[in-house]
Amino acid sequence: MNHKPDAPWPEMRLSPVGVVRSGITSPMLAAGDGDLELQEKNEAMREYHEKVEDGICELVIHPDFAELLEGIEDFSHVMVLYWPHLIDPSKRRLRKVHPMGRKDLPLRGIFSTCSPARPNPILVSVVPLLERDGNILRVKGLEAVDGSPIIDIKPFVEPSHGAKDPKVPEWMKRIHRDLGIDTPAEA
Amino acid sequence: MNHKPDAPWPEMRLSPVGVVRSGITSPMLAAGDGDLELQEKNEAMREYHEKVEDGICELVIHPDFAELLEGIEDFSHVMVLYWPHLIDPSKRRLRKVHPMGRKDLPLRGIFSTCSPARPNPILVSVVPLLERDGNILRVKGLEAVDGSPIIDIKPFVEPSHGAKDPKVPEWMKRIHRDLGIDTPAEA
Repeated sequence: MNHKPDAPWPEMRLSPVGVVRSGITSPMLAAGDGDLELQEKNEAMREYHEKVEDGICELVIHPDFAELLEGIEDFSHVMVLYWPHLIDPSKRRLRKVHPMGRKDLPLRGIFSTCSPARPNPILVSVVPLLERDGNILRVKGLEAVDGSPIIDIKPFVEPSHGAKDPKVPEWMKRIHRDLGIDTPAEA
Repeated sequence: MNHKPDAPWPEMRLSPVGVVRSGITSPMLAAGDGDLELQEKNEAMREYHEKVEDGICELVIHPDFAELLEGIEDFSHVMVLYWPHLIDPSKRRLRKVHPMGRKDLPLRGIFSTCSPARPNPILVSVVPLLERDGNILRVKGLEAVDGSPIIDIKPFVEPSHGAKDPKVPEWMKRIHRDLGIDTPAEA
C-alpha cells in the first residue's frame, strides 16, 4: 500500500483567522508539572479542569472575516480548531507520551492521545456557543490558552462530528474519573 | 477587543503524515454540480452520500509515523483531519456560500457551513475505526477523496469532541432529510 500521494503535495500553510481571549494563561501540563506526587498532581489538574470547564472565553475573529460567521448563531455548538502556540516546536517530533504526563499511565503513540505535542499541532474542541456579537463568539469550557491563534470555526454537525456509543480504553476512563468528568457513554 | 496576538504569530506550516486511499475520486459537489434541477441534484447527492457512508477506506500513515499510532486500536472512533487537495486554492477567499451549492438554501458565512472552501481548508471527520494493520487504519464512512493528505489522527474522546443535544438550523435539517441521514438528536 502506497503512502505517497499521486501528485506533489500541496503547500499547506495556515493563516490565523482570529485569537482566543481566555482567563487560562498556561497549558494544563504546566499546572500539574514538576515533581509533584501523583495525588497532588491529580488535585492540581482537577482544579485546572474545573476552571476551564466553567470558564467563558471569547473567540475574537479578525474583522476581515466577520462576514464568514453569518449564521453560526443558529447552531448550539461550534468546533474550534486552534494552534497551541506555547508548545515548543521541537515537541512536534515526539513519538510517544505518558498521557497527561502521568507515569502511572501506559506509554502511548501521540496519535492515540490528545497531547498538544503532535506533528501538526492543531487542537480541536467542541464547545457550546453562548452568543455571537459581530466578530466575537462567546463560548464555554474551551481549553485553549489566552492568545492561541484560531485556525477555523465550524458548526458542530452530529452526523459528521459525533459518534454513537464511543469506546475508549481504561487509561482514558481513569483520566476522566480523576478529573471528575462525567461521561455517561463510558459508564 | 483586540484580535491581534500578544506575540508574533508562529509559523503554521503543515506536513502530511499520510494519505487517504478511497474509492471516492471526486468531491461531492462535483457529483451534484452543473445545471441539474434541484430534484436531480438531490438524487445525485443522495447516491454519493450512500456510497461514502458504506465505503471502507484506508488511512495509510507514513511508515516513519507508524509508532505514533500505538494504542489507537483501543478506541472505537477516530477523528481524522485532512486537506481537501482538489479544491482550488483561490476558493480559500470565498466568504459566503449556498450550503451544498443549493440555491434553495440561504446564503451563509463559510464558518457556518461545512464547505471545504475555507480560509484554512482543514476538514474534520469522526469515523468508526474498524482495524489497525501496522501503519494502516481501516475506517468506515469517511468523506475524503482518494489521495487527500492526512494532517492528524486523534482518538474520539466524548468530553472534548462530543456535544449534548446539539441544535442545528432548519436548512441543515433539510440537507440531512434530503440525504436520508437519520439524526435522532435533531428529531
